[in-house]
Amino acid sequence: MAELSGQSGVPVATIKYYLREGMLRPGEYSSPNQASYGQSHVERLRLVRALLDVGGLSVASVGAVLTAIDDETMPLTWAFGVAQHALPNPIGTTPERPVPIGADDPAHFERTDSAEQQALLHPELREVFAERGWVVSAGNPGIPIATRVLETYDALGLSHLKSTLGRYAAAASSIAEADLGAVGMRDDRAEMVESVVVGTVLGDALLAGLRRIAQENVSNQVFPDSPA
Amino acid sequence: MAELSGQSGVPVATIKYYLREGMLRPGEYSSPNQASYGQSHVERLRLVRALLDVGGLSVASVGAVLTAIDDETMPLTWAFGVAQHALPNPIGTTPERPVPIGADDPAHFERTDSAEQQALLHPELREVFAERGWVVSAGNPGIPIATRVLETYDALGLSHLKSTLGRYAAAASSIAEADLGAVGMRDDRAEMVESVVVGTVLGDALLAGLRRIAQENVSNQVFPDSPA
Repeated sequence: MAELSGQSGVPVATIKYYLREGMLRPGEYSSPNQASYGQSHVERLRLVRALLDVGGLSVASVGAVLTAIDDETMPLTWAFGVAQHALPNPIGTTPERPVPIGADDPAHFERTDSAEQQALLHPELREVFAERGWVVSAGNPGIPIATRVLETYDALGLSHLKSTLGRYAAAASSIAEADLGAVGMRDDRAEMVESVVVGTVLGDALLAGLRRIAQENVSNQVFPDSPA
Repeated sequence: MAELSGQSGVPVATIKYYLREGMLRPGEYSSPNQASYGQSHVERLRLVRALLDVGGLSVASVGAVLTAIDDETMPLTWAFGVAQHALPNPIGTTPERPVPIGADDPAHFERTDSAEQQALLHPELREVFAERGWVVSAGNPGIPIATRVLETYDALGLSHLKSTLGRYAAAASSIAEADLGAVGMRDDRAEMVESVVVGTVLGDALLAGLRRIAQENVSNQVFPDSPA
């Protein structure tokens, strides 16, 4: 374990904590006090650190996404759901209708193209779904997030900000296609699921970073009033 | 104050706290124990709540963006910088080179097209800057965020995820143009700055929500292996 700690840069006490929490598989015991760890442990440790430190996931959420990576019977589409539900909610509120991912939950199969679900959608979001031909499960965590933002624009008397919705939706489509394209570059199932999880979690941050850069670039062009 | 609380739904104790923290201007005193509040107070209260609850900003950051809205001498391009710096960092680390926004700080005027700054950029980010003709201040908070994500993809042996960078950058450009377009729909300076602040803060969440929807939609098409 001291060696594993040296190779990964993760303190022994932290490795023991990850083992207790099931985020790291036990090593192979050659004697009661001697376990051996391999390259797979070093890689798993790096993944756990990235999800916690860079992705900002909770310990419980890291456990959920690791289960998705290790469960070879889970369909790949579900891995996206698991990764999405594991992400910290960007608006700091719990979605009203959280849908657990699992074959035993009928709500997982309710879809946004039913008349009932269409009526529940925010009118402007419903328009975007129609324009883009989007059909997803009713419990998709993006729906309450987008709804809350649109409602807040209205509540603040800044309804003109909703004019961005179409462009944002087009951008989101292009991003999702890039995400899926990257996943398809791997053919090993575990690597594909790991790509889904890491790309979903860190892709939000990458996009937020690039948006800050693009905003400054275009604002310098549109409003060249900087005293620089 | 009881009336203001009733109209806005914000408890009196909370209103007093906002007054102490300078997030709300004092009412006009008609007698030592009687102040009157107007529509502008109701609107400011709504904005403060949205930035705290929906945007997830800290009290200190709300103070900074309110100053930007109220300071009529601040150029509009700076308002973007203030809003960007106020946002919680999506990767949970402090950027290495935080740049305060202000005419007295020479670092504010150092730009990414200098040879020195080019050498500091992550190679793949430098390529994107060249392709898109992006030139921004060296202290743009998006630079360390995007860099950290790219480095993490490499560290996890998932370098193929970097193949998304070009599409993400194109999407970020389109989004930034939509953001600026929405701001330009207003002609009152205070309303423009408020649009910048709210659109920057809540736009990240809107985009994250739409990305979750688009991901599920495209993954259902690309991997139709769901047992639904």
